[in-house]
Amino acid sequence: MAVFLEPREQLKLILRGAADVVSSDELLKKLENSFKTKKPLRVKAGFDPTKPDLHLGHTVVMNKMRQFQDLGHQVIFLIGDFTALIGDPTGKNETRPALSREEINENSKTYAKQVFKVLDESKTEISYNSIWMDKFTSADFIKLSAQYTVARMIERDDFKQRFEKQQPISIHEFLYPLVQGYDSVALKADVELGGTDQRFNLLVGRSIQKSYGIDSQCILTTPLLEGLDGIQKMSKSLGNYIAVEDSPKDMFGKTMRLSDELMVRYYELLSDLSSVEFEKLKTDLANGSKHPRDAKVELAQFFVRRFHGEKAAESALREFEEIFVKKGLPDEIPEYRMAAVSQISISNLMSQAGLCSSNSEARRLIESKAVEIDSVKVTDPQLKLDLKSGESFVIKAGKKRFAKVVIT
Amino acid sequence: MAVFLEPREQLKLILRGAADVVSSDELLKKLENSFKTKKPLRVKAGFDPTKPDLHLGHTVVMNKMRQFQDLGHQVIFLIGDFTALIGDPTGKNETRPALSREEINENSKTYAKQVFKVLDESKTEISYNSIWMDKFTSADFIKLSAQYTVARMIERDDFKQRFEKQQPISIHEFLYPLVQGYDSVALKADVELGGTDQRFNLLVGRSIQKSYGIDSQCILTTPLLEGLDGIQKMSKSLGNYIAVEDSPKDMFGKTMRLSDELMVRYYELLSDLSSVEFEKLKTDLANGSKHPRDAKVELAQFFVRRFHGEKAAESALREFEEIFVKKGLPDEIPEYRMAAVSQISISNLMSQAGLCSSNSEARRLIESKAVEIDSVKVTDPQLKLDLKSGESFVIKAGKKRFAKVVIT
Repeated sequence: MAVFLEPREQLKLILRGAADVVSSDELLKKLENSFKTKKPLRVKAGFDPTKPDLHLGHTVVMNKMRQFQDLGHQVIFLIGDFTALIGDPTGKNETRPALSREEINENSKTYAKQVFKVLDESKTEISYNSIWMDKFTSADFIKLSAQYTVARMIERDDFKQRFEKQQPISIHEFLYPLVQGYDSVALKADVELGGTDQRFNLLVGRSIQKSYGIDSQCILTTPLLEGLDGIQKMSKSLGNYIAVEDSPKDMFGKTMRLSDELMVRYYELLSDLSSVEFEKLKTDLANGSKHPRDAKVELAQFFVRRFHGEKAAESALREFEEIFVKKGLPDEIPEYRMAAVSQISISNLMSQAGLCSSNSEARRLIESKAVEIDSVKVTDPQLKLDLKSGESFVIKAGKKRFAKVVIT
Repeated sequence: MAVFLEPREQLKLILRGAADVVSSDELLKKLENSFKTKKPLRVKAGFDPTKPDLHLGHTVVMNKMRQFQDLGHQVIFLIGDFTALIGDPTGKNETRPALSREEINENSKTYAKQVFKVLDESKTEISYNSIWMDKFTSADFIKLSAQYTVARMIERDDFKQRFEKQQPISIHEFLYPLVQGYDSVALKADVELGGTDQRFNLLVGRSIQKSYGIDSQCILTTPLLEGLDGIQKMSKSLGNYIAVEDSPKDMFGKTMRLSDELMVRYYELLSDLSSVEFEKLKTDLANGSKHPRDAKVELAQFFVRRFHGEKAAESALREFEEIFVKKGLPDEIPEYRMAAVSQISISNLMSQAGLCSSNSEARRLIESKAVEIDSVKVTDPQLKLDLKSGESFVIKAGKKRFAKVVIT
């Protein structure tokens, strides 16, 4: 939309789900000024052009960018190719080899493909920091590094810890936050977005802009998204993720299995609801005028629509309804609540949940391919499960027996 | 001389008066290799192109360069114009404004004029670090700064103190030693010379060369030269100096007034004597076969010759002889030894030294222009002197009365 909302309304949406903002007063002033002058704010977010393999946790920042975009501001998708071209110059870090120009372009394309499922491509300015950093002279570098002190740099959490533990910090590591800060000078950023782990670097940007005689950017950090377990942060290695490239079916299914609480959190951080719509959703859920399952269906459809398009969202909903509704998944599945446990056998779990009379019956059912967890067939009668607090899933045994297992 | 001395002999001369060498074993190996392959060592010394106003204290390093030169090695006079062009980028240090290219060239010329009174210009390679630093890209800078750690940099005495006292250190200050180190890479230096205050920076050079796959240079530091008082380091502000631009007469006179001990020290650090000649001088002085005054005359002539040429040295000697010898300066002047004292009046001193019977006689003598200190007429009867330990000078009162005042 090209018309700006009233500044305080904009601020409300922007702050939704933010971990931290420096500072909301400053940001409000910038929004007011932008509103008055009809000049969009320049909102920067930087990305490493390393091989992208994104899950929803990564899209929290993008979603915040999208919100700015929907409010009419100019979003800048900055690809930090300068440092990627260098890699790890100490040669000690195998995971950070120098990337070639071609690899960077390839990764950036893959990135863009995923990112523009969230952002409006036509309204996004894409930039590369090599544009100005390649032209940087050594004198420029000296000048830049004169703008920050060693002591302030060592305040960064990871530097501080390494310094105190006497683990080596190479001097070039001090230069990277400065380069990131200079990017904000080059881009004349009014706002910079990033995850909470980027807070220090974003603050450096404020300081560097000031040194170069430019108004300091506001910074806004977004929290790390909780994974499907609702406890640990979403991560591939923990297996508690929805990947951007997950199939519509998986995306839909995983969303449906969120706890009610986590579903609200995902709405807060990942949806495109306006502040008013989001508040209404919470009220409706609280007073029972909206069933959590319906809210989940809508969220699941939103995700599939965003990452796979409208048509896929419709098919996923149809498929879901066929399996869970039409194919006899009862409206209310008996719930079995239990404490977290490690390495519980599937047969034991099924007995406890009242799905069979004995462990051996459970094994027979599995061997005859009659057991599903969240619509996925169980094939191994020896399967062991680690059940973490906050998880929930549906076990189907035979054609008519269901139990929703909820780990408390 | 184009023919190399035997390596161990070279080493002896090189180590004479050195404060520190890292390491003499390595240096001997380099000398042996150079001797075998008839390839001169590349010996680097860097200079700041700030306004030069040199005294003999500054020439200790140059003299060491000259020794290398006389041994047949390649001396490189490196002008650190790169950083001078930048100045102090924090803008906080008024004494370090950025110099223009013209100012740097002007200062370098003045420098060269003074330096080539010690060095053989035809055998000196002059270089400027802007040659390679101006071409340095930001990627080069990242690579360079990756070769050294923050912790090691903070080990430098002044950084350590400032860090502990929480005085700010700008990050660019960490880059300067790296640049100086890279200069040794660019120049392929085998040896770097500098004052003791440069020790850390020279060691960084060793490390940086290694990182760039080049044999590490040996480093050799020279001590701070004691001033004419024999106690504090030579400095303009303390007034205990012989300036490179001092007149032949002053240079000669100041040298003649050195204590015997300090004279030997100056021979060690500033003369062009070979090791054998220097050892012989010490022996001759010890067994009385050489009179200290004669040794001083030769040193005085050496200085005047070096900084003003042969002719000036001859005139200065003649003048000295006329005043002190032919004009009735007795061969043995009565010596008056006394402890250091502040603000003693000239008349009081003359009375104490037995040059007059009363303070009032002293004043009369001064008023009638009949009093000289080291051949310089005293015009102020109220003159007060600060006499520091190690000083000595001759007071002449009237035509025939002399006293050599020695402050113990």
